Amino acid sequence: MLHTQEELLHIINKTITKEQFDYKPVELFEPIKYTLSLGGKHIRPLMLLMACEMFGGDINDGIYPAFGLEVFHNFTLIHDDILDNASLRRGKATVYKKWDLNRAILSGDTMFALSYDYFFRTKEEFIVPILKVFNKTAVEVCRGQQYDMNYETEKDVSIAAYIEMIRLKTAVLLGAAVKIGAIIGGAKEQDSIHIYNFAENLGIAFQLKDDILDLYSQQEVFGKETGGDIVSRKKTYLFLKACELADNELREQLVPLYLETSLEPQTKIKCVRAIFDKLKIKKVTEEEIDKYYKTALYHLDKITINKEDKASFYQFAKQLMKRDK
Amino acid sequence: MLHTQEELLHIINKTITKEQFDYKPVELFEPIKYTLSLGGKHIRPLMLLMACEMFGGDINDGIYPAFGLEVFHNFTLIHDDILDNASLRRGKATVYKKWDLNRAILSGDTMFALSYDYFFRTKEEFIVPILKVFNKTAVEVCRGQQYDMNYETEKDVSIAAYIEMIRLKTAVLLGAAVKIGAIIGGAKEQDSIHIYNFAENLGIAFQLKDDILDLYSQQEVFGKETGGDIVSRKKTYLFLKACELADNELREQLVPLYLETSLEPQTKIKCVRAIFDKLKIKKVTEEEIDKYYKTALYHLDKITINKEDKASFYQFAKQLMKRDK
Repeated sequence: MLHTQEELLHIINKTITKEQFDYKPVELFEPIKYTLSLGGKHIRPLMLLMACEMFGGDINDGIYPAFGLEVFHNFTLIHDDILDNASLRRGKATVYKKWDLNRAILSGDTMFALSYDYFFRTKEEFIVPILKVFNKTAVEVCRGQQYDMNYETEKDVSIAAYIEMIRLKTAVLLGAAVKIGAIIGGAKEQDSIHIYNFAENLGIAFQLKDDILDLYSQQEVFGKETGGDIVSRKKTYLFLKACELADNELREQLVPLYLETSLEPQTKIKCVRAIFDKLKIKKVTEEEIDKYYKTALYHLDKITINKEDKASFYQFAKQLMKRDK
Repeated sequence: MLHTQEELLHIINKTITKEQFDYKPVELFEPIKYTLSLGGKHIRPLMLLMACEMFGGDINDGIYPAFGLEVFHNFTLIHDDILDNASLRRGKATVYKKWDLNRAILSGDTMFALSYDYFFRTKEEFIVPILKVFNKTAVEVCRGQQYDMNYETEKDVSIAAYIEMIRLKTAVLLGAAVKIGAIIGGAKEQDSIHIYNFAENLGIAFQLKDDILDLYSQQEVFGKETGGDIVSRKKTYLFLKACELADNELREQLVPLYLETSLEPQTKIKCVRAIFDKLKIKKVTEEEIDKYYKTALYHLDKITINKEDKASFYQFAKQLMKRDK
């Protein structure tokens, strides 16, 4: 009998609570404890454990690698918050703002190093294969972050380049999670490729959904102001697609408006949204999301195990797509 | 017949030149190529290969792990230069100054991740043991750096705390280099402990020597202005020892003088040096260095292989101690 998602999340939370990071100097480990205490959805460790069990593995062999992924993910958040000059993360001050630049850099580095330690805490035979997957992914995540930074100032960003950026920045780590789970679960090579592709495509869909939610979700549900991407001039899928679909005249209206910084935020959001609506951008993006979602499901279908054992991943994918925040 | 130091350095340089890091985005890999092109003494890869051969290993199994250590070391330099707000490194602009903060953070992170890749490029059986040594060390180096930052503002730093800081920040990585070499060379457990202790003690001596050279070396030989540590109020071994040895009256003269920022640099250096000379700080520090050097040699003596095969490490240690820059 497989664990339910709730049971797995409970196990993940217990592990996070147990790992105290009470080392010295406290200046280094305090920000690490703080970051991990902020919570989050724990999607990566969850996906790792789900994949591990689906292929018949023991979650006791997967729990520390799963935690390692969570530590790594939180390291990337600490450094990303510096790069983005972000003040808030999960409603609390970012490490960079709560302490200072130096501590954010160094506690991030330490977290990165610590994350590797957890991949040793599994059966000997799994260590090298999972470390290879993890390490390749870590470099890809850095590359994705650099593309993201590049695109802030680049004038012409293609849709393909944008998708590649979100693939590297977000999707590959979900892919790594399930692939590591598959290795620990003893999956066949072909199945581990399919589960990777499933998660990668789901990750791209997830990230595109983020772009929609930022503008079109209900503010009460979303939990923060909508339209933030427009105010901060972020080159989202919505914007890039609008540039592609607009005729010259409309594009010459949209681009300067979008890059504008002096307009009152609500006015800017309203005007940009009007152009997006004219071009049916929400619907177009939803169709794109559906394309990635369907590709993800195709790969899940292809996995050569009982359909019942895959049920939790079908449900998980559906949930992610239905989310409204 | 073992390779000479020159031959090993030639092999290391060839490997550095061969690894081109021609990946995308260039914004990420340009700073990495730049940093590795700045040269340096390559002490860590050299020590790894020397240990590997001394214990009968094949340097072909050690060269990529050796390069991994060099990549890791250079990552720490990129981030340290941000923390120290340093403009120059090996006479060239630091990554942080040449490009910007964000690229220095992110290319450093990438370098850290890339360094792990090289530890996979050896015989399968070595990978996990050497990764465990490396990873433990990476966390220690971060801890040492945090202590170093702490001590900038802490009022009372003990000599013991200072030694522990330089042990973590510098010496353990030399220890890791020879221990990894010992693993690849097939050394007995006890011998690998001795070679680690040898390198760790040598590293502490090396770092204390740095403190002396900063003030007492001949400027023409040293290649940069002497007395920089005094100007920047760095709590070196010289200063901490002087505080310990001075009577109350002299200490009350020294401390405010040392922490002074408005004095003309040459005047400040002259006054501090006069107090150091009165307390024979140079001699006292040299005796301390000699203590660590002797402990290092004790551990080298203890290693159960032919004395001739250890000759190159005896010579290497002697060289490091005699260096004047």
